[in-house]
Amino acid sequence: MSSNKIPVGILGATGSVGQKFIQLLIDHPDFEIAELAASERSAGKKYGDVVNWMMAMELPQNIAAMEVKNAADISLDCGLVFSGLDASVAGEIEEKYAQKGYTVVSNSKNHRFDTFVPLLIPEVNPGHLDLLSYQSFGEGKIVTNPNCSTIGMTMALKPLLDNFGLKTVNVVTMQAISGAGFPGLSGMSIVENVIPFIGGEEAKMESEPLKILGKAGENGVEPADITVNAQCNRVQVIDGHMESVQVSLKDKAEAQDIIEAWRSFKSEPQELELFYAPKNPIHYFAQPDYPQPRLHRNIEKGMAVSVGGLRPDKIFDFKFTVLSHNTVRGAAGGAILCAELMNKKGLIA
Amino acid sequence: MSSNKIPVGILGATGSVGQKFIQLLIDHPDFEIAELAASERSAGKKYGDVVNWMMAMELPQNIAAMEVKNAADISLDCGLVFSGLDASVAGEIEEKYAQKGYTVVSNSKNHRFDTFVPLLIPEVNPGHLDLLSYQSFGEGKIVTNPNCSTIGMTMALKPLLDNFGLKTVNVVTMQAISGAGFPGLSGMSIVENVIPFIGGEEAKMESEPLKILGKAGENGVEPADITVNAQCNRVQVIDGHMESVQVSLKDKAEAQDIIEAWRSFKSEPQELELFYAPKNPIHYFAQPDYPQPRLHRNIEKGMAVSVGGLRPDKIFDFKFTVLSHNTVRGAAGGAILCAELMNKKGLIA
Amino acid sequence: MSSNKIPVGILGATGSVGQKFIQLLIDHPDFEIAELAASERSAGKKYGDVVNWMMAMELPQNIAAMEVKNAADISLDCGLVFSGLDASVAGEIEEKYAQKGYTVVSNSKNHRFDTFVPLLIPEVNPGHLDLLSYQSFGEGKIVTNPNCSTIGMTMALKPLLDNFGLKTVNVVTMQAISGAGFPGLSGMSIVENVIPFIGGEEAKMESEPLKILGKAGENGVEPADITVNAQCNRVQVIDGHMESVQVSLKDKAEAQDIIEAWRSFKSEPQELELFYAPKNPIHYFAQPDYPQPRLHRNIEKGMAVSVGGLRPDKIFDFKFTVLSHNTVRGAAGGAILCAELMNKKGLIA
Amino acid sequence: MSSNKIPVGILGATGSVGQKFIQLLIDHPDFEIAELAASERSAGKKYGDVVNWMMAMELPQNIAAMEVKNAADISLDCGLVFSGLDASVAGEIEEKYAQKGYTVVSNSKNHRFDTFVPLLIPEVNPGHLDLLSYQSFGEGKIVTNPNCSTIGMTMALKPLLDNFGLKTVNVVTMQAISGAGFPGLSGMSIVENVIPFIGGEEAKMESEPLKILGKAGENGVEPADITVNAQCNRVQVIDGHMESVQVSLKDKAEAQDIIEAWRSFKSEPQELELFYAPKNPIHYFAQPDYPQPRLHRNIEKGMAVSVGGLRPDKIFDFKFTVLSHNTVRGAAGGAILCAELMNKKGLIA
Repeated sequence: MSSNKIPVGILGATGSVGQKFIQLLIDHPDFEIAELAASERSAGKKYGDVVNWMMAMELPQNIAAMEVKNAADISLDCGLVFSGLDASVAGEIEEKYAQKGYTVVSNSKNHRFDTFVPLLIPEVNPGHLDLLSYQSFGEGKIVTNPNCSTIGMTMALKPLLDNFGLKTVNVVTMQAISGAGFPGLSGMSIVENVIPFIGGEEAKMESEPLKILGKAGENGVEPADITVNAQCNRVQVIDGHMESVQVSLKDKAEAQDIIEAWRSFKSEPQELELFYAPKNPIHYFAQPDYPQPRLHRNIEKGMAVSVGGLRPDKIFDFKFTVLSHNTVRGAAGGAILCAELMNKKGLIA
Repeated sequence: MSSNKIPVGILGATGSVGQKFIQLLIDHPDFEIAELAASERSAGKKYGDVVNWMMAMELPQNIAAMEVKNAADISLDCGLVFSGLDASVAGEIEEKYAQKGYTVVSNSKNHRFDTFVPLLIPEVNPGHLDLLSYQSFGEGKIVTNPNCSTIGMTMALKPLLDNFGLKTVNVVTMQAISGAGFPGLSGMSIVENVIPFIGGEEAKMESEPLKILGKAGENGVEPADITVNAQCNRVQVIDGHMESVQVSLKDKAEAQDIIEAWRSFKSEPQELELFYAPKNPIHYFAQPDYPQPRLHRNIEKGMAVSVGGLRPDKIFDFKFTVLSHNTVRGAAGGAILCAELMNKKGLIA
Repeated sequence: MSSNKIPVGILGATGSVGQKFIQLLIDHPDFEIAELAASERSAGKKYGDVVNWMMAMELPQNIAAMEVKNAADISLDCGLVFSGLDASVAGEIEEKYAQKGYTVVSNSKNHRFDTFVPLLIPEVNPGHLDLLSYQSFGEGKIVTNPNCSTIGMTMALKPLLDNFGLKTVNVVTMQAISGAGFPGLSGMSIVENVIPFIGGEEAKMESEPLKILGKAGENGVEPADITVNAQCNRVQVIDGHMESVQVSLKDKAEAQDIIEAWRSFKSEPQELELFYAPKNPIHYFAQPDYPQPRLHRNIEKGMAVSVGGLRPDKIFDFKFTVLSHNTVRGAAGGAILCAELMNKKGLIA
Repeated sequence: MSSNKIPVGILGATGSVGQKFIQLLIDHPDFEIAELAASERSAGKKYGDVVNWMMAMELPQNIAAMEVKNAADISLDCGLVFSGLDASVAGEIEEKYAQKGYTVVSNSKNHRFDTFVPLLIPEVNPGHLDLLSYQSFGEGKIVTNPNCSTIGMTMALKPLLDNFGLKTVNVVTMQAISGAGFPGLSGMSIVENVIPFIGGEEAKMESEPLKILGKAGENGVEPADITVNAQCNRVQVIDGHMESVQVSLKDKAEAQDIIEAWRSFKSEPQELELFYAPKNPIHYFAQPDYPQPRLHRNIEKGMAVSVGGLRPDKIFDFKFTVLSHNTVRGAAGGAILCAELMNKKGLIA
């Protein structure tokens, strides 16, 4: 490749997260898809011959023609890899990549709670990248992207924490089926239905925000002193996790102050004008029946979080609704933004 | 009619609640559909010519052939009327029926908080029928059925209140579109979407359980001392309201005790073997991804409440999921059960 | 078992067709579920422990407690077996059951075109049971149920063939997802989508009606001289196959004559008053936007075929819409009706 | 406005077609939204205050701030108007605009069969713009966009007609609900359902292609000598009409020739590089289960037609599936492309 873009590899390239990585990186100004890797079964074949392409665009011919490598071989010709590997294998393989000197930005859960691995939302805890200096995987590094249902809520919580302090957070989710990958949920299970269970999801939502909103230091991250409780449901929506959230704040706040805190929220990705950074990370809607997945999930390329319906609560202080695009902001897009931030900070070799 | 069934009339017979009353009363052992009434526009015409029949069965020919009367004329030849009138007119018309001596069982919201009008769930507060002796509408009476989203939750709360005491209840609903009637929500609004707003619904859910679970006396009902908070969402399900519920109890309880309280719960409708009384008002499911609207809404003719997923909560004591059929148990079926209870107790003239 | 019902076994009892067999046989007046058989993996275990029960009713405890046998062992203690086996194994296993003396009523495709195996719709070609006398599987027999998309259309065609003669039939289907079993189609594939392909379906629809509508004799069935063309699509409906059908008739017919032919159509199952026989096999709807899957699939226990929209065609003679419940009339219910007919005729040992 | 773009007005700006016009014109290189007009009820108010904005993007603030005019006043300050008026009023109002000198590009049905009004698909019959010279509405002109279900099919037919000749066309549609506007179909009608009826749609599909594919001359258009038959169904898809099409050709053709004819098809919009012209008007997919609405409706900004599944037919010569985006290519986008073509040809004053 003759461009001066940074060559990147995608681990788990045939899966649904891998496909989304490809879709979002095709026209990226700084990164160029150089390598695609998947399981041994696909290795040595052309990507177009092994992928069941599910993105709502045609698979570009140059991508279709790329040869898939075996992710386990740790032999990609690039320095940065995005991992959409299944959690059953991600832990070990990602570690090996780091040991061989690759910078790994992972969407998998395996390393999220490693002491010196940042669980990163670029707008929320960019300073956690300092943890990288303590990592000892070898020459490389691992950065993780939080769970899809964590990201939107935590972004909406960040301005509340900064301005008013946070005591307790209660959330009930109505999550999109793309979060379960492909084939994921059977149509027979989800059509005209709600499923009140997502394996492991509540534990993630109750623990990840504490690390993300915590303080990073030489001993790792001291978790934030907030209680988070979650109930997770699956609904018949393709993309876009909806969350009914309730919060109790440390300081007294008026609704208008909270809305102003959301609307004015900006952070490093906005200041650095990163490619996938939304201009406004949080869009607050005054219309009472907003946000809605089908109408608002794609705002700002799917990278903004939509919030609405802020109103007093009889048990907590306030209740409101949060929406974010689970496979863009909540997965591939979020991970790419992490890499953009690292790149701007000179953290990619 | 030569049968010895009780002739009943249906107000608002062409609407979606009215249609459901017809569907559920067609083969009723004690009640017989004698009169159909709707707005002036339909009056004088055959029911089959004016109704846009939406029930999942063929409209019986004898019903189709009935002449629709003007509900506002208060001229039905029967003593008991079920009202599925729109709230914009129900208040005044229902009162006139009561004044002329009819027994009115209403699904509309207008009289729910009248001092001496029972807000009745036969399994929960059958004793509230004592309020009827204080009513002064005239010779007749009015009994009301709670809101569709209130009924399922309140039935699930009743055994908790009786056994362990209730302090706070938090609920997030995922409600079916049939609750909005017909045409109700546009397909463009709800297909592949979630709408985080239902007008007036949260206020109903936060107030109705307090009256239902309160103590009835000569001054009306003293509301229960419980705090209820609600967030209401609409999802793409035809029938069956799902509710993610959290509770704090007065007394310490083990999960197994709560499940046992639900499973053993029976009340007057069961003892009296009323036709639409479910044998088990509450079905508790051990499978973690149950209940689900499409699988469980029709259990026991749609009159049972399904509960599942009881587990500890980080903020409250417990969380769980409640499902009930919103147009059967939560509307027409619930109202018919009220009438069955009144009939058995000799409260229908 | 002390009842005088006929004990029956279900092959492939854990699959979606097997589950539907169970649901429909639970309260059957003549048949009693005596044996459940599935693959070796489930053998020896309790049915409730191995099934992912997807029927919209609770799994009865006595069924849940039954021990599942290995279908391949050919050791069921009953004379009649219903087969919902997967086509990959059904051919051989069903044949072995027949050889050991069982009467096999199969919903699988494998033996449908065997020379002396009836491809049976009890209302359409009951006389094809005569083929059984030529079968040579051993002491037992095999009868097959047609494909789910074939049955509804062929029932609607039968009165046209009898009264006016049939030349050509053109059909475009919009099929329900339950036809693909469980897990079948991914939710990611079918939600808010149409899939214009169902493997092997068009060939079945183009060939099966010719055998069903043909003449059975000592050389097997002489296929009907009709040309059938099919295009098959999958739509986001749980149950109920819709079919846009066009026909050219041999004799001139008025629309009213065709409607009358449908409405008056009755056959042996109706005369014999079989339990699952619909009183009217074909319901014709005059309302132009009928039939619809959600409204009409369950008419007459899901065993009737709904037809509507008969109107002139610019290329063929007439066009109309056919709906039938694909897992009841089109699968388990249809097969049970076959067995009821055989039982009444003394064809079950 | 200081830009040198052509100022345009939108009639029926608050409706769903009007909203789509706005969405597609916001960043248009040649046209600029100068005027919004709707019914008297909205006149004099700010657009943001009267519209129920349903597009999947935020309503831009400058559009929200525009004052809506009364469409019936014929007082817009621009020369070109796009009409998304309801058919109940479009006929008369559009004519008045033309009489006052405006160029009207209409998505409504009213003038489609006027003798000298082009029924225009820019790739198919650009020469029909010659009819404008015979128009006598006054100083202005009217050009119409075909019905949403006509456009996709007719684009797919054009290369067949040109290369092999067309005798008969048979089509069964599975149409998206956005075609019915807002609120359009009730959610209760379409969720988990199919509706086999769309008022007036079959007549449009059977007549419009004949005019579009006909020859324009001084006496108007001589319709093409093709027989088209249509059956129209509504399915639960938001955007994207699917059509199962069958054709008989005049000349013998091999499947590969047809596919090549589709893939190589280009026309004036492509040569003129119009902004909304797809590079390839027809995308043929070899994968048998393609095209699908959710995956392919947005290809080339929603302006390309997707075709797949070409295979021999038992009654006609070939069958295949056509998909096109009904509110983009089939409505607002198609109309804008008409205006772009007219603009390039100097036909807009």
